[in-house]
Amino acid sequence: MNNENLFEPTDALVGVIMGSRNDWVTMAAAADVLDELKIPNERLVVSAHRTPARMVAYATSAAERGLKVIIAGAGGAAHLPGMVASETNLPVIGVPVQSRALQGLDSLLSIVQMPGGIPVATMSIGKSGAKNAGIMAARILALSDPSLAKRLDDFVAKQTAAVLESAEL
Amino acid sequence: MNNENLFEPTDALVGVIMGSRNDWVTMAAAADVLDELKIPNERLVVSAHRTPARMVAYATSAAERGLKVIIAGAGGAAHLPGMVASETNLPVIGVPVQSRALQGLDSLLSIVQMPGGIPVATMSIGKSGAKNAGIMAARILALSDPSLAKRLDDFVAKQTAAVLESAEL
Amino acid sequence: MNNENLFEPTDALVGVIMGSRNDWVTMAAAADVLDELKIPNERLVVSAHRTPARMVAYATSAAERGLKVIIAGAGGAAHLPGMVASETNLPVIGVPVQSRALQGLDSLLSIVQMPGGIPVATMSIGKSGAKNAGIMAARILALSDPSLAKRLDDFVAKQTAAVLESAEL
Amino acid sequence: MNNENLFEPTDALVGVIMGSRNDWVTMAAAADVLDELKIPNERLVVSAHRTPARMVAYATSAAERGLKVIIAGAGGAAHLPGMVASETNLPVIGVPVQSRALQGLDSLLSIVQMPGGIPVATMSIGKSGAKNAGIMAARILALSDPSLAKRLDDFVAKQTAAVLESAEL
Amino acid sequence: MNNENLFEPTDALVGVIMGSRNDWVTMAAAADVLDELKIPNERLVVSAHRTPARMVAYATSAAERGLKVIIAGAGGAAHLPGMVASETNLPVIGVPVQSRALQGLDSLLSIVQMPGGIPVATMSIGKSGAKNAGIMAARILALSDPSLAKRLDDFVAKQTAAVLESAEL
Amino acid sequence: MNNENLFEPTDALVGVIMGSRNDWVTMAAAADVLDELKIPNERLVVSAHRTPARMVAYATSAAERGLKVIIAGAGGAAHLPGMVASETNLPVIGVPVQSRALQGLDSLLSIVQMPGGIPVATMSIGKSGAKNAGIMAARILALSDPSLAKRLDDFVAKQTAAVLESAEL
Amino acid sequence: MNNENLFEPTDALVGVIMGSRNDWVTMAAAADVLDELKIPNERLVVSAHRTPARMVAYATSAAERGLKVIIAGAGGAAHLPGMVASETNLPVIGVPVQSRALQGLDSLLSIVQMPGGIPVATMSIGKSGAKNAGIMAARILALSDPSLAKRLDDFVAKQTAAVLESAEL
Amino acid sequence: MNNENLFEPTDALVGVIMGSRNDWVTMAAAADVLDELKIPNERLVVSAHRTPARMVAYATSAAERGLKVIIAGAGGAAHLPGMVASETNLPVIGVPVQSRALQGLDSLLSIVQMPGGIPVATMSIGKSGAKNAGIMAARILALSDPSLAKRLDDFVAKQTAAVLESAEL
Repeated sequence: MNNENLFEPTDALVGVIMGSRNDWVTMAAAADVLDELKIPNERLVVSAHRTPARMVAYATSAAERGLKVIIAGAGGAAHLPGMVASETNLPVIGVPVQSRALQGLDSLLSIVQMPGGIPVATMSIGKSGAKNAGIMAARILALSDPSLAKRLDDFVAKQTAAVLESAEL
Repeated sequence: MNNENLFEPTDALVGVIMGSRNDWVTMAAAADVLDELKIPNERLVVSAHRTPARMVAYATSAAERGLKVIIAGAGGAAHLPGMVASETNLPVIGVPVQSRALQGLDSLLSIVQMPGGIPVATMSIGKSGAKNAGIMAARILALSDPSLAKRLDDFVAKQTAAVLESAEL
Repeated sequence: MNNENLFEPTDALVGVIMGSRNDWVTMAAAADVLDELKIPNERLVVSAHRTPARMVAYATSAAERGLKVIIAGAGGAAHLPGMVASETNLPVIGVPVQSRALQGLDSLLSIVQMPGGIPVATMSIGKSGAKNAGIMAARILALSDPSLAKRLDDFVAKQTAAVLESAEL
Repeated sequence: MNNENLFEPTDALVGVIMGSRNDWVTMAAAADVLDELKIPNERLVVSAHRTPARMVAYATSAAERGLKVIIAGAGGAAHLPGMVASETNLPVIGVPVQSRALQGLDSLLSIVQMPGGIPVATMSIGKSGAKNAGIMAARILALSDPSLAKRLDDFVAKQTAAVLESAEL
Repeated sequence: MNNENLFEPTDALVGVIMGSRNDWVTMAAAADVLDELKIPNERLVVSAHRTPARMVAYATSAAERGLKVIIAGAGGAAHLPGMVASETNLPVIGVPVQSRALQGLDSLLSIVQMPGGIPVATMSIGKSGAKNAGIMAARILALSDPSLAKRLDDFVAKQTAAVLESAEL
Repeated sequence: MNNENLFEPTDALVGVIMGSRNDWVTMAAAADVLDELKIPNERLVVSAHRTPARMVAYATSAAERGLKVIIAGAGGAAHLPGMVASETNLPVIGVPVQSRALQGLDSLLSIVQMPGGIPVATMSIGKSGAKNAGIMAARILALSDPSLAKRLDDFVAKQTAAVLESAEL
Repeated sequence: MNNENLFEPTDALVGVIMGSRNDWVTMAAAADVLDELKIPNERLVVSAHRTPARMVAYATSAAERGLKVIIAGAGGAAHLPGMVASETNLPVIGVPVQSRALQGLDSLLSIVQMPGGIPVATMSIGKSGAKNAGIMAARILALSDPSLAKRLDDFVAKQTAAVLESAEL
Repeated sequence: MNNENLFEPTDALVGVIMGSRNDWVTMAAAADVLDELKIPNERLVVSAHRTPARMVAYATSAAERGLKVIIAGAGGAAHLPGMVASETNLPVIGVPVQSRALQGLDSLLSIVQMPGGIPVATMSIGKSGAKNAGIMAARILALSDPSLAKRLDDFVAKQTAAVLESAEL
């Protein structure tokens, strides 16, 4: 294992990782929600296929580094979320990135159809799914953080209000 | 709202609900894992379509009743997980029950393709997904319960050992 | 239930609702047909997921407010038509809005694959489906409104004539 | 047009037609609901492909014979519901019969994806869809038949009660 | 049946019909091949759904008008090829026009999945399929027209030569 | 090219070929229709993949041997119909045999999605498609055989009568 | 890394691995072909998800242990072939095992849709694919083993002969 | 067989062929990787459907001309890879070119779902698949070419480094 695969201690509670730098345009939506809800987070490219040792190092050290939840996005034969979930007992949230040819159906099935024993909490395809991954992380962390629970309530209330304000057509 | 929709206080941490009694053959796998990991749980039929008031009552009262996680299984146009997730801020885990004609593809898409704002942590189709829902609930609860974290570690170790014991063909 | 969820009396016979303001570009086709056929109608955003209480209020009060038919459009994990159909015995017509990644296949299956007991009259994906929802409402209302039946006959005759006028290539 | 294509007057309000005698095992569920709700109905095999003249005769004479709603079931390249809807302005409800190879996906798309101008109220694939077709007919007819509306309310209440009675697992 | 539905005698051997004027951009490829092979042909809009009487008149009179082959293109719930095939014993070639949402998968299944008894010779989706429909008509007509058989041989030889001329990259 | 690939002269007008002996259970339906319509036919296993030289020999000699139409059935990556169509200018009818895993969707797409230049007249998946292949061959041959045209008319009339005889349920 | 993950030296040239013991019923077809062609092979259960460390150990040590080709079978969210291909530069052949709900479509897409940089040579779904994996391994190894090339020629010739012997129906 | 089908001796180890000149925009990615890895290669258009004799000539002469691996790309009903694999015992790598209507799903299934006996090493849809085809050829050739093995190691290391260099977001 080389140096790139040694991850320093972190204050982040949520790790937002993705298989390719190109996925950032999708995954930024997860990081944005986490920022809005004031949940410390880190964002990295960790490729299951092109940097497998880095992926193993990230997953196996995540809990001791202080992370509580991992959000992993990938497209096509998307193995990152499932492989990370195999290497840690933290909750792993998977985001299927929309692929070119099959438009994310391959990403979705590669992430969600995990065998019994290793769950991945799969979100919808694309940016909506990335946003929801951030919210799901918040729901999980809010179970033991009343202050976050309050911020999450406000976030949802604001969302409801936005719909109501422009509900007449 | 009639009496059937008043839910009594509970010691359960996880609610396992499903749209139809027929879904129990699938969803029992979730309850079995929760039992094995000694996570208190309750199991009920709550139909989004045939008992919508009951569904609203269950979801809106879940947090104050003490539940931490809801596992919801449904098939076909499977609305239960998403609608429950709309009525509570607890983490909701969705299990697509295999449907007759389209074999669960409809169930999967109805559960996973939630719009931005309301996440459902979707598992794989069928019994494997139900089992994984139980494990995902354990991963979430273990974040603030070291004793459960230990039991989960043992559960995973046993699973690994089972593979290794019979790995020669 | 807050004030936004109290719906005032209406002269509309058809309610055209949709899960998001973005769906209006699709659903306007339904309202246009209703207008052309002089069927009083109302149009609102009612989100099953982001405003569930409003959705329940709308559906349960629809019949007493005087509505006869509800047209509901939604995309992705499209729960609005089915949930509204669960809360009223009025005929509910569902329009699958074309989604980004899966192009409406998810919307279609989420709407049409309702379990036995709660029907949704599902139309085709997108604007054609929205237009057809308006015509289907007209077919239903024309059963007890001979004047509308005449207008509907004329509408169809005009449509046939338009095809015939330009049938040579 | 031969004699087989002259349809006698009828007291039926709903016509339940299907493309093949083999479809009856599915479509009986529609007739059963209509019977249970005391809605007069007739059941016939009318094949769009093998008896097209009969199909045209049935559809064009339906309104004057006194029918109010037509329920049409077919499988595979299922043209019956759409073609009947092209020949009458009555509301037509389509039921996709589960096909052998593609399990009803072909039936569903052939029925639901109608072009703008000719709507078919499409139900789910198979027996659940047939049952729902009967209920949808009832919802439509109940708009102008308070006695039927009452029977429909009771039907739904019984359905809800059945779920609640066995909701504990 | 009105006058628009009376088709005059024709010298055309192949009828190229389509459900909508919008389909011409696709179906022109069929007519172009027929012209290139000097096969007399006619092109018309004949909608199964919006002009069903015209469709029946066209199909039932085709053989006596002198047509030998009918090429029918349609999109979505594409009923035109199958319905025409039900009203004539001439060979009918179906072309699935690419649809907006489902990109022609619905068109393809609606045309190809005909029940036993009524065949439609289905081509590929879109312009390639339309071109091939013209060639298939030529293959059929060439069985009893040696001069056309020669022109078809030349057509194929030219096609082969075109590939060979630019086969180096 | 070995002896197995030399095909003797034949009185058959239609060749029914298939990729594997296992396909006979499906393709027999084509031969049965041809027999019933008294169309001389031959049936052989000709595998595009396992006996490519035989396939080329069969296709290139078909016209001079006196065949008029070739019916080719295959499953999975079904290349037989398209490859035969590449080696002859006779009309080739393709029958997608239902495959195990993907139930014939792969067979269908492999046969129907031919590129511009080489058409295959594709039938529905399975036995119905095989039956229809026989009828399509009859429609083609009847264009220049009035006696066959009469037998085909009778065949269709009998089919219609069979539906009408049992049309009441 | 524990002892189970230390793989001893081997004479095998091909490793046949699979994600679960249940996959053996499929993957045995690969081993059978290798045996028939006298290619030394080993067979093991190596789960990407349940024994990730073992999977890494197997893949990274494969080349130095003397293996030339790895055949990996898995079902559902099938990550094993792609992950092994990420950890070795040996050719990896992937076999999609037929899954319960989606019948192997998920397995296929999870294996074949690898991102640029890490190829998996994907075979067809199920036993045919496993058999073909064995033959593909033979084709690769025969490039530098004339004796095997001869055995492979004989194998193919026998296969051709078997088709020809029973080609008459 | 005409002159165009006589292939001259070559120093190329890998043949990159494709069904149409239009496929070059995709398949160039395969040739680029081969060039980068200094693997001699040739690129040609060889159409299974429009130049079948050329295809047979190419495949049957490939081994004696000195080729070791064939990479074949095609779209739609993509028969080229499978047919070439039927005519040679060299390893054949198939690349599904993205098609217009069905976006490569047809190409993928037509290539990968080969029957038992004739394997095609299928890559992902489109340019990524073409790139991977080049790498897979390198993996195969590197088994008996240590110098290439070294270049392949460097290629992969460079790829890994590129991910690591920009892994922070």
